[in-house]
This record gives sequence, C-alpha cells and structure tokens, in this order.
Amino acid sequence: MGESEPKQAIERTQGTRVGTVMGNLRERIASRSLMPGARVPSIRVMTEALGVSKSTVVEAYDRLVAQGVIVARRGSGFFVSGHAPPLALADLGPRLDREVDPLWLTRQSLQAGSKVLKPGCGWMPASWLPEDGVRRALRAVARDPQSSLAEYSNPYGLPALRQQLAWRLAQHGVEAPPEQIVLTDGGTHALDLVCRFLLEPGDTVLIDDPCYFNFQALLRAHRARIVGVPYTPSGPDLVVFERALIEHRPRLYVTNSAIHNPTGATLAPAVAHRLLKLAGEHGLIVVEDDIFADFEDEAAPRLAAFDGLSRVVSIGSFSKTLSAAARCGYIAARAEWIEPLIDLKLATSFGNGQLTASVVHRLLVDGTYRRHLESMRAKLADAMGETMRRLGYAGLDVWTRPRAGMFVWARLPDSLDAADIARHALGANVVFAPGNVFSVSQSATGYLRFNVSQCNRPKVYEALQRAMENAAVVSERA
Amino acid sequence: MGESEPKQAIERTQGTRVGTVMGNLRERIASRSLMPGARVPSIRVMTEALGVSKSTVVEAYDRLVAQGVIVARRGSGFFVSGHAPPLALADLGPRLDREVDPLWLTRQSLQAGSKVLKPGCGWMPASWLPEDGVRRALRAVARDPQSSLAEYSNPYGLPALRQQLAWRLAQHGVEAPPEQIVLTDGGTHALDLVCRFLLEPGDTVLIDDPCYFNFQALLRAHRARIVGVPYTPSGPDLVVFERALIEHRPRLYVTNSAIHNPTGATLAPAVAHRLLKLAGEHGLIVVEDDIFADFEDEAAPRLAAFDGLSRVVSIGSFSKTLSAAARCGYIAARAEWIEPLIDLKLATSFGNGQLTASVVHRLLVDGTYRRHLESMRAKLADAMGETMRRLGYAGLDVWTRPRAGMFVWARLPDSLDAADIARHALGANVVFAPGNVFSVSQSATGYLRFNVSQCNRPKVYEALQRAMENAAVVSERA
Repeated sequence: MGESEPKQAIERTQGTRVGTVMGNLRERIASRSLMPGARVPSIRVMTEALGVSKSTVVEAYDRLVAQGVIVARRGSGFFVSGHAPPLALADLGPRLDREVDPLWLTRQSLQAGSKVLKPGCGWMPASWLPEDGVRRALRAVARDPQSSLAEYSNPYGLPALRQQLAWRLAQHGVEAPPEQIVLTDGGTHALDLVCRFLLEPGDTVLIDDPCYFNFQALLRAHRARIVGVPYTPSGPDLVVFERALIEHRPRLYVTNSAIHNPTGATLAPAVAHRLLKLAGEHGLIVVEDDIFADFEDEAAPRLAAFDGLSRVVSIGSFSKTLSAAARCGYIAARAEWIEPLIDLKLATSFGNGQLTASVVHRLLVDGTYRRHLESMRAKLADAMGETMRRLGYAGLDVWTRPRAGMFVWARLPDSLDAADIARHALGANVVFAPGNVFSVSQSATGYLRFNVSQCNRPKVYEALQRAMENAAVVSERA
Repeated sequence: MGESEPKQAIERTQGTRVGTVMGNLRERIASRSLMPGARVPSIRVMTEALGVSKSTVVEAYDRLVAQGVIVARRGSGFFVSGHAPPLALADLGPRLDREVDPLWLTRQSLQAGSKVLKPGCGWMPASWLPEDGVRRALRAVARDPQSSLAEYSNPYGLPALRQQLAWRLAQHGVEAPPEQIVLTDGGTHALDLVCRFLLEPGDTVLIDDPCYFNFQALLRAHRARIVGVPYTPSGPDLVVFERALIEHRPRLYVTNSAIHNPTGATLAPAVAHRLLKLAGEHGLIVVEDDIFADFEDEAAPRLAAFDGLSRVVSIGSFSKTLSAAARCGYIAARAEWIEPLIDLKLATSFGNGQLTASVVHRLLVDGTYRRHLESMRAKLADAMGETMRRLGYAGLDVWTRPRAGMFVWARLPDSLDAADIARHALGANVVFAPGNVFSVSQSATGYLRFNVSQCNRPKVYEALQRAMENAAVVSERA
C-alpha cells in the first residue's frame, strides 16, 4: 500500500527539520532528478549537505520508508521506490503556508455551512442570482421538443449558444464567428483546455501579482513555472513585464482585463496597446479571462479586441453572473487552433453538457439575463459604495476605486497581517480572503479582498474589528 | 503569427519525403531534444543522416520556417524558434493513419447529420434513452425549493447522489462510503482527473488491445507511454501482462471489466484474481472503468470488489445508460486519495455541475432509471440476437458472444480491411467502427465493432455488403 501518503502526514512534518529533509528528497523525486530505483544519498552525506543532525535524517528516511517513497535494502542503503507516491497538488509548486495557500479560500468558501459569512468569497450569494429565472428556463427546456436531452452534443457545443456568444463578444469589439468559439464546462475548464493545448511541462507563464488565486493552482497542475508581474491600477507594470519576457521567455500570460480580480482595477488603453506590442515582439500568447465582462456598465478595453484573436485567446463563463450550478463557459481563439482544442476536449471530457448549454441559451434569449444584469449592477454599485465607506471607518485603505464588479482590494492599517485576521475571523464563522492567497510573490500580506455582495451584514465588520484588535495585541506582545 | 500550424499542412506533407524530414525535426523539438533557440542540424548533415536529397531538406526547412517552427539567420543557419507551435494531440503520440485514428470515430459520430446511420457509434440513439424521464426530472428539479440552482456545489459533489452511488456500488460488491466518492462531469472527466493525480509525463500505462479508443487519446494528452496487452474472451492475456509489468514498469492499467469495450467480453474471476496479485507484486494501480455496469443482468466480477479499493480506482458515469447531455460521472478511490483529487478538480474545473447531478439523482430515486434499465436490457438482448444473425449472413465471425451490453466485435471474411469498409460506407452515409481505432498495436485490421442499438436498419447491412464487395474488388486488382 506504499503508493499513497496521507496529506496530514505532509502537514505534520512541515516546517520541522525532519520535514525539510523529507521535502528535499520528495522534490528531487518529483522533479525526476532522482529516478525510481536510484540510490538515495547516504545518511552521512545528507547530514553534511543539509547541516542537520544524523538523527533528523534517520527519522526523515524512516518516515519516507513508511510512506513507500523510498525503500531500504539491507547493507546497501536507501533507494527510490519503484513507484513514487502520487503527488498532491501542493507538492507541485513552492510550498506556501497551508493556511493561506490558493486552495484554502476555495475550500473554506465551498464547504462553509449556511451560518458562515463569506466576505472573502469569490461569488455572489444565491439570492443575488436569478434562481427563479433558472427554474423557468429548466421548465422551458423540459417542454421544448427541440431540446436534445439524451445525446452527446456537437463537439463545438450548442450552435445557438455559440451564435449568441459571437454577438456578445462583438459588443466588446471582439470579432469571433461561431466557428471560432468552443463551449466548455465553465471558465476554469476553458483555461485548462487552453493550457493543455499551449503548454508543455516546464514552460513559463506570466500572471498578475496579485491575481485570481486559482490561476496558480491550475498552472501548477500543468507543471508550469509561474512568474508574477506586479499589477498597477491601470494594468501590469510594463517595465517588469518586459524584463520578465526577456529573462524568462514565457509562453503565456494569463490575465483578467475587464475588471481585475482581486483588485477591481481596469486595464488602460495605452497599457493594453503597449502590452500587445511586447507580446508580438516576444512571441507571447495572452489568455484573457473575461469572466467579469457582464459586470461592466461600459466595456473597458479588451486585449482580444485590440489584437483580433491573433495572439490573444478570450475565455469566459456565466458562473459569476448567472449560475455556478449550470457550468457553461467558452473559448474564442484563432481559427486554426479550434480543431486541436476540440480534439483535446473530446479526449479529456468528451464534450460539454448540452443540458446546461440549453438552459443558459434560454436565459440569454428570453431577456432574463439582460434584466438580471441591470438590477445586479445597480445592487452591486450600492453595495460597493457602502462597503468602501465601512472599510474606511474600520481604518482600511482601498487600493483603487473599482469602476464596477464585486471586489474591493483594501489594505489593513498598522502593518497588520491579513492571514492572522483570516485565521481569527474563521473562529467567528467569517471567511475573509487574505491578500497572499492571490499573490505569487507573497507580497500582499497587508491586503484583504472583499466581495461587496457578501458584505452587507454588520457581523462582517464586527468580526473584522475584533480580528484586527486581536492581531494588534499579538503583534505588540511579539 | 508563427505559433500555429494549420492541421491541413501536417496532413498534406505527411507520407512524403519532405514530410519525413519535417516530422523528424518536429519530434525532436516536441520532445525538447532540440530546445527553443538551439541550432538545427545543417542541411548537409540532415541530408546525410536521413538519406534524402538536399532539395528535400531545403524544402522541409523552408516550410518549417514558413510555419514559424524554425528561423533562418543569414550566414549562420537555422535555429529552433523561440516558441515552437503548439502541438496538436495527434503529434503527441505515434502518427497513425489519420482516417482511422482514435479521434476519427468520435468526430464522425458526433458530427453526423440526422440522415447518417451509425452502427459504429459508441452510444445508443436518443429513442433508446429515457428522454421523457429526463424532461420530467428537469421539471421536478425546477419545482423543488431544495434544489440549489445558482451556487457552486460542495467540492465532493451532491451528497445525496454520492449516497445513491455508494449503495449502487455496494450491489456490485464495491464498498465505498460516500466520503470516498467524488462526482465529475462524466466518465472521461473522471479518468482524466485520476490520470492527473497518478501520472507524471513519460509514465507507462497498460491498456487492453483492443480497448475503448478514447483511452489512447486521453493518455496521449497526459504524455503517457502506452503499452497494449492483448485481450482474450476472459480478460487480458496474463502472460503478456506479466511480461509488460517486468519490462515496462507501468504505473497504471486502465480497463473496462464488466462488459469490455469493444469486444463485449467479460473478465473471468480467476483472471481477475491473478491480475490483482500481479498488480500487488509490481506496485501497479488499476483504473476500472465501470461505465457499462448497468447494462448487465448479473454483475460480473469487479476488480474493485476483489481488491476493496486498495489499488483499484473505480470510475463510471450515466452517459451511456441515462443521458449524455447531462454529464455526470464519479470516482471511487481509497480514502487518502480523495482530498488531493478534489484539490485537482477544483484547480482544473472548479467543481462539477449541481444541476446535472440533481437531475441524475432525481431519476435514480423516482424509479425512472430502474424501469428504463429493465426495458433497455430486454431491447438490447433482442437487438444483440438479431445483429449477430445478420452479421453471420453477411459472412462475419463474431469474436465472442457478449453476455450483455451493446457491442459486438466481429471479423470480416477474406482478410478484408475494416478501414477500407469504413471509408467506403461513409460515402453511403453509414459510419462503421474499424477495429484499428481500438487497437494500439494496429492488429485489428479485419475487425469491426457494431453497436446493436444502431443496427436495426437494413441499410446498415446493405452498406456493409457493398463496401465488402468494393474492398474485395480493390484487393483483387492490387
């Protein structure tokens, strides 16, 4: 039963000297610098190399033997076992503090019970979404003799929905005929397919720092090297961006441009133009995640519009604005990439669900979605004003005033650590989103992301206040 | 615009000398033995190495330059371009005859118009599926105030459906509590997640020869080395299986055991037992795709039942028996693999659709599914008898008489080539499934797979007969 290692075991030993030795060996096995069957450095060599005691190395090796990672052969030392244990996702990248790693927030938000408040959550509460509209659409799809509810879909996805998407993209200046649009099971699935097509293990990918935290987890699953570029209120810092292009020769840049997550910033036209020029000069491909498109009152510049889907791939979904229960997203890309993307989609998921596509299509054409967007934007604008005011009273600084959307990025006073705040508030059943969840360089220690649609209860600010007082006391003592 | 290469260009040059030179270089670039920026062998060196003319190499290099794969620098030769073009899936493995590659059948079947007959298709026609039941379930889900139609699901997937799955698995002797079951967007998505968790690029995977064709496409997307083991009417050939374990040290074995696709064979208990013993001795993990479970009248042995989910992972879905439009599958695996599988699922698809899971759950609990299975099995048994009789009249030999299910694997007379038959019949709007689509060793040239639910029209046998006559004439002339 040596193939597996309970995650708890990783966590228990993390941060200790024994854990360091184990981590060192695991990394070398994971990166295949120690292949299965290879001899593991002797206890003596390891003791000297890592500057730890012999008993530490002995204990680390014993644990790795117990976990089936290495085997001991009497009289001849230790060897990498025939089958290294499967790697947990956390093993694929730099080890972060588990409490603020990119998956922490997802798990906390998804598994929270109904009594938990989630100002740090990445989506709106069900009451802000058109659940009644979804129910009506379900009944309509059930009644419609044209809807195909048993068979596999066309590999591209429901033609009528792709036609709708083509029109919607055109409104943002992105010219994508339905033949250049592929449906997926949500925005994450769209990005995953694009990465499968464009990335080889070991390729470098640029992301914004901070950015949507799941980009990091997804890119690690693709074994990409991740390089962060600081984000400014008008887009990525282009001086650092250009330096990264020269130094790291990245294959891809993944970004949200309409309304940036987590900061709420908007890409300035001049930055967009210059960014695309650099991309052209350095052979960079850009994936523009347009998932917040429909939060905007007025469309901000789109990289995909400027570029004409030449080196920009546009992805999006309806999970944030319509329903996350009906997974439906899309990829719009240059014509000759569509066939290989569909081959990959068939190979790895055999096509997306006709049922959810039919439901989404129905909501787009019957006016439900348009009406919902209008009222949702008005509600969000009110909530944005209110949240910013309350954060101001609490002593936080808003980094930039978002034009639209649901996120506010705010800095804590007095060098407080947002991870401490999040940990403390969790005890009071409030999930905050500490900045470093979004930051590959871990440079957002003092920031929190607030979702204004989840911030309308006094308890949110009470929990914030108490957590801040607690953190201040702890830091004074230290 | 150098990142892409239209697929047509690959196909046009395939099989020519110029194509050989291009293929040679592309493979070395894809495998990173030539890295971006590296110097490409000179025209003289390449001419000698491949034994082709200088003009052939010059033309190949010119085309690769035009495609942006390599760049010419005046006076100093050719270099691998900064960004090799993204690889199409077909480039990731051995190049097969495009007309019978594993994706050919999928694309033909999915994109066929309504006038096309599909005896080679892998699923049943909509009229054999409980489409009315799906409509009723949709209405019921729409009405139910308990159904959550806006929010993301619990990361494991709908608890009530996982409980149902636990009961169903127990009926096949597989003990999996709901906590060891993860919902996915279909069976392919389930296998994809398991491969993401267990495989590193370059790992070897055993598959049955023949087997479900999409296993090959999916495993190539994971950059796995694929080794086939001949399938016998009672399971894999264990002599070859054991030899493959010793020689190739595979990480995984992926199989269908209840009713084998494409052959309709059933695993014998003695083979199952011996196979698991070998797996234990060689540290092999087995993925058992149980997608045809509900076609059985009596449950055949399950590897997952014998093994108790220790080194067997069980996956399945409802796409074949209920609806392919409501994508819903599952993974049942050992307890300590569940958390990392969920991390990967969140990172790469952010969880599965609550909506489709609710619809499937409703159909399971309201009796629709049970009643549908009973009538479906009876219809399939009739169609199986009829199809086997008709294939006998046409001169084909059935390889083994399936206990249940929809597939018959049959050999053509007179050494006819099934790919020729399939190509010819396509002209008459009939899609057959040539054996080599399923065979990694391409050793099933004389076989076709028939789906008995799609074989009830005389035109199927007329097209078969005419294609066989045509192939016989062509082979006499040759």
